[in-house]
Amino acid sequence: MSPPPSRTVDLLIIGAGPAGLALANWFRDTDISVLIVDKKPLPTTRGQAEGLKSTTNEIFDSFGIGSEITAESWRLEEIASWGARKDGGDGIVREQVIPDRVEELGKPRETMLQQSRVEHHMLHNIFFHNNIDIRYSTAPVSIEVDTACAHGTDVYPVTVCLEKVNPYAAAVNGEKANHDTPTEMIFAKYIVGCDGARSWLREQLNVTLEGDLTDSVFGVVDMVPKSNFPDLRRVCYLRAASGTILLVPRSNKEVRMYIPVESGSALPDPKDLTFDRILDAARKIIAPYTMDVGSVSWWSAYRVRQRVGDHFSRLNERAFLVGDAVHTHSPKAGQGMNTSIQDAYNLGWKLRLVLEGLIWPPAARQDLLRTYESERRPVALDLIAFDRGFLKLFSAPSAQFDTEILQALKFTTGLSIRYPPSCAVQLPKGVEELGPSLLKADVVPGKRLPDFRVVYQADGVPTWMHKRLYATGQFRVVIFAGDISDAASLQRLHDVGKYLGESEFVKHLTMPASGAQPLVEVLVVHCAERDTVDFLTLPEVYRPWSEESGYDYWRVFADVESVHDGHGRAYDRLEIDRQVGSTVIVRPDGYIGAVLEVEDVEAVQAYFRQMHV
Amino acid sequence: MSPPPSRTVDLLIIGAGPAGLALANWFRDTDISVLIVDKKPLPTTRGQAEGLKSTTNEIFDSFGIGSEITAESWRLEEIASWGARKDGGDGIVREQVIPDRVEELGKPRETMLQQSRVEHHMLHNIFFHNNIDIRYSTAPVSIEVDTACAHGTDVYPVTVCLEKVNPYAAAVNGEKANHDTPTEMIFAKYIVGCDGARSWLREQLNVTLEGDLTDSVFGVVDMVPKSNFPDLRRVCYLRAASGTILLVPRSNKEVRMYIPVESGSALPDPKDLTFDRILDAARKIIAPYTMDVGSVSWWSAYRVRQRVGDHFSRLNERAFLVGDAVHTHSPKAGQGMNTSIQDAYNLGWKLRLVLEGLIWPPAARQDLLRTYESERRPVALDLIAFDRGFLKLFSAPSAQFDTEILQALKFTTGLSIRYPPSCAVQLPKGVEELGPSLLKADVVPGKRLPDFRVVYQADGVPTWMHKRLYATGQFRVVIFAGDISDAASLQRLHDVGKYLGESEFVKHLTMPASGAQPLVEVLVVHCAERDTVDFLTLPEVYRPWSEESGYDYWRVFADVESVHDGHGRAYDRLEIDRQVGSTVIVRPDGYIGAVLEVEDVEAVQAYFRQMHV
Repeated sequence: MSPPPSRTVDLLIIGAGPAGLALANWFRDTDISVLIVDKKPLPTTRGQAEGLKSTTNEIFDSFGIGSEITAESWRLEEIASWGARKDGGDGIVREQVIPDRVEELGKPRETMLQQSRVEHHMLHNIFFHNNIDIRYSTAPVSIEVDTACAHGTDVYPVTVCLEKVNPYAAAVNGEKANHDTPTEMIFAKYIVGCDGARSWLREQLNVTLEGDLTDSVFGVVDMVPKSNFPDLRRVCYLRAASGTILLVPRSNKEVRMYIPVESGSALPDPKDLTFDRILDAARKIIAPYTMDVGSVSWWSAYRVRQRVGDHFSRLNERAFLVGDAVHTHSPKAGQGMNTSIQDAYNLGWKLRLVLEGLIWPPAARQDLLRTYESERRPVALDLIAFDRGFLKLFSAPSAQFDTEILQALKFTTGLSIRYPPSCAVQLPKGVEELGPSLLKADVVPGKRLPDFRVVYQADGVPTWMHKRLYATGQFRVVIFAGDISDAASLQRLHDVGKYLGESEFVKHLTMPASGAQPLVEVLVVHCAERDTVDFLTLPEVYRPWSEESGYDYWRVFADVESVHDGHGRAYDRLEIDRQVGSTVIVRPDGYIGAVLEVEDVEAVQAYFRQMHV
Repeated sequence: MSPPPSRTVDLLIIGAGPAGLALANWFRDTDISVLIVDKKPLPTTRGQAEGLKSTTNEIFDSFGIGSEITAESWRLEEIASWGARKDGGDGIVREQVIPDRVEELGKPRETMLQQSRVEHHMLHNIFFHNNIDIRYSTAPVSIEVDTACAHGTDVYPVTVCLEKVNPYAAAVNGEKANHDTPTEMIFAKYIVGCDGARSWLREQLNVTLEGDLTDSVFGVVDMVPKSNFPDLRRVCYLRAASGTILLVPRSNKEVRMYIPVESGSALPDPKDLTFDRILDAARKIIAPYTMDVGSVSWWSAYRVRQRVGDHFSRLNERAFLVGDAVHTHSPKAGQGMNTSIQDAYNLGWKLRLVLEGLIWPPAARQDLLRTYESERRPVALDLIAFDRGFLKLFSAPSAQFDTEILQALKFTTGLSIRYPPSCAVQLPKGVEELGPSLLKADVVPGKRLPDFRVVYQADGVPTWMHKRLYATGQFRVVIFAGDISDAASLQRLHDVGKYLGESEFVKHLTMPASGAQPLVEVLVVHCAERDTVDFLTLPEVYRPWSEESGYDYWRVFADVESVHDGHGRAYDRLEIDRQVGSTVIVRPDGYIGAVLEVEDVEAVQAYFRQMHV
């Protein structure tokens, strides 16, 4: 028998769901070869997840598909709580309507779009890139990793056998496909498992999920309601004597209802739950309102699992697990698809830098890749802890319900995430741990750069900053230069620009002689009136010229009133002093790598030296 | 010789440019067969037009492609004027920066997107509709119209022979293709010429363009500038002693410059103008700033033609001319693509209603179709008149320059357009001509419904009204119901709803028993606090139920503060009394058909009776 065909790829991704597709999106416009395999015969036309947090929408913005996704999404603006009547009568009454708003964000906190449409946009965005292949009906059957060579540079230590999955085979033969005839051998530099809760790769890597089944059994129903309940288009927490419902408006005219069924003593097996039993429970709770069914598109019953993998990467950081493959929790906080995409977003740029050969020596590569686990595993653990409280809150009514919901809104936006110090998150010189004084504002190493709205110096067009932070794999040195109508501040900006554009080490990062994409983009956010600034007299690093395409007009921003969209008040939102200013190093994923003094240009150099780029 | 193949179509469109594609977009989701032919071998990858007025963007919104187009567009926020130094020295100085803003709009007045991308989105939007065919490399060679049967209903009085165009033939043979062998005979109910300034159909119809060549010769250049001129990303009017430039930032890093060359006495033939001569002229004007060339993507020289066709429709309203085919003017006000699309938008819904068989008797059909000429020809004439003044203003500096520019901005947004009374624009009973008292506000029969932002009653999501006025061919009866927390106002809304949903004649328009799309959608805009309104207790015509898809939650709007986007203040903007209210009949193209008293339900019925639907 002749050997099966084989090929080498830089990155093998198992699973083309939200995590796998988000990861692949990092590799558009690179020469890195990526292969995604998925055992599904086709892209899903339906998935159960819908909620998109604003931080996830920022990721789509950075991939260039944010506007399309937002245009197609449904906004959620309000949350209503309903409770038993206080006068002892039967039925529920509306207690409160809370705006679904987190002030710090300055924009909608959550939008809704069917998972299949989210996947569609991410898939479409990589479809015409020759370096990225997607194969459906394809599953891995075995993996071998040569750990001996795992520290090498141009090596392919991961060997995976793939086989074609016949989607009809199981139905026809009632047995599994034959594993002895792999269709192809893949030799990969790195492998990432985005293959969901029943991850094949997790099993191969001997990663154990820690945690356990909870005692919460839920029924969940997606349906078109025919009902006189007045809040069908608001997120509703209903708590009646007979039980609770979480009702979430979905795309089109559907609602989703989560209904804990007979929680407490006599736990049913989810398998015994029928649609009618779930609907009956819902009807009892929502009375005196009616709840008839227009149509049902999906329903299920399940016991919540809250588990986190003991490792997120294995084999000297040659293999990774992302999303549901390495943590599971209840779906009610709408965190599954979001966390999966955010995991992938955290890992993607690190793999991209490594695969582009920008990090040296090999030990530094491993340091960087190790931050995937050190950054994302604590997030998953926090999420489980949150989920436990949320589940309890939801199953058993509490007096602090509304306060806790508001806290939950904040938590689920991810604003509290702070990654620990590492090669990519550097604390100020001499500081080991950030004390409370440094943690007052949100501009802190390890946190996401808060989004803010400014206008371009050159044309006065307003933009949100994260919309400008395209996922190019570039770091940004964002200089909050203060009021540069002041001569001293302007001089300082000139001096810094001269250093960043001309000093030998930094120059190869900011303005490479090759004309290649620089690894570091220098951006300026000032707060002077625009007419006091003559853009083209600024140092070239702030408005580089390309013989092919002209000036880059879009690196200098002003924190001023815009013609049509009002004033973003960026300096106020970020609590940056207009005289002192601040320089913020923003990682390719929009998280803050370091916060520096504007004058301290050496510290910029030091950051990148410590990153080993 | 056997006869050529033939087919019948409801509508034959000549030309797949902005006008033809906009027209075709009206016929998505209908059973009307549309054939578009274009002699080009492929969709253009480049076109010279770029500016999109906000009223054109509203049209894209109604086609469902507004968000995509806006996301890809470049905004223009500012206009700068530059003039000769006042101190008598050489060179130009910046005189003023004006925000590019028209307060009445409440949103950006103009955005920029290359014509080819605009066409791409319109093309993509019809591509998968089986009833609409597009054939490139195809040109009409002869037309015959049987005027005898032109008043019939299911007749195809237009016969057109098409031939395949070999794009290489001219190059190879140096002669025209052979016209004796048409590839196909088309029998059409209607034909529309969207075939540009050298329209074939215009010639066949013996339509004469009135007006003439002006004595203005212009050079126009699209290029990447290498220059130290500080306003490269603002619209600039430069007036130096040696001449004038209109500089407009384009997509990416290009600018377009319009330069009148040697206007006045010694008029050159445009053919004699070279790129170098145009650039030299530009350099003299822009001095002391430099103007070098990164790259040039297009340049041309032309003498402006300002002409309007004597007819916009012929042959008993079986044949129409749209856009450049029937009016030409200078491109500097960015009106060409916009006016073409707006012409097509005006004609499209009328043809749709007629072809759907909704208008009876035939004379009423012709009445409606005749309004295309009576509405759009005056717009073209006004545009020419404006263009003359604008051209003069531009060629010869004037003291009122800035005031006139601001007036021009308003004019070019189309806010002053008012269509004359007709079957589709009905004045109040007994009123022959609108007096000044009725013309104070902008809510006037014949004007475009001013756009405004409100929130949906059901979910609190904000929307602009024109975004909601999808191009479905439906009329909207928009009831500004006032403060319905007041019992009398609520009762009035109930009474009106009962009439509109139950009265025999109106009911077949608003809630047809067949379940088909109603011709009239009833919308409610109230200004009560949302929590005082119980949506599902309103009459069904305001929130119809469909067994297939559930309630229509999106017909009732509130003029209140939104959770994230502020307060739209619709009643104030539209100057509608909160007690009295108003009912506005909005035509399928967003123009106002009638303004009525809320109580006067009979007048609603009268409007549609007079439309003969």
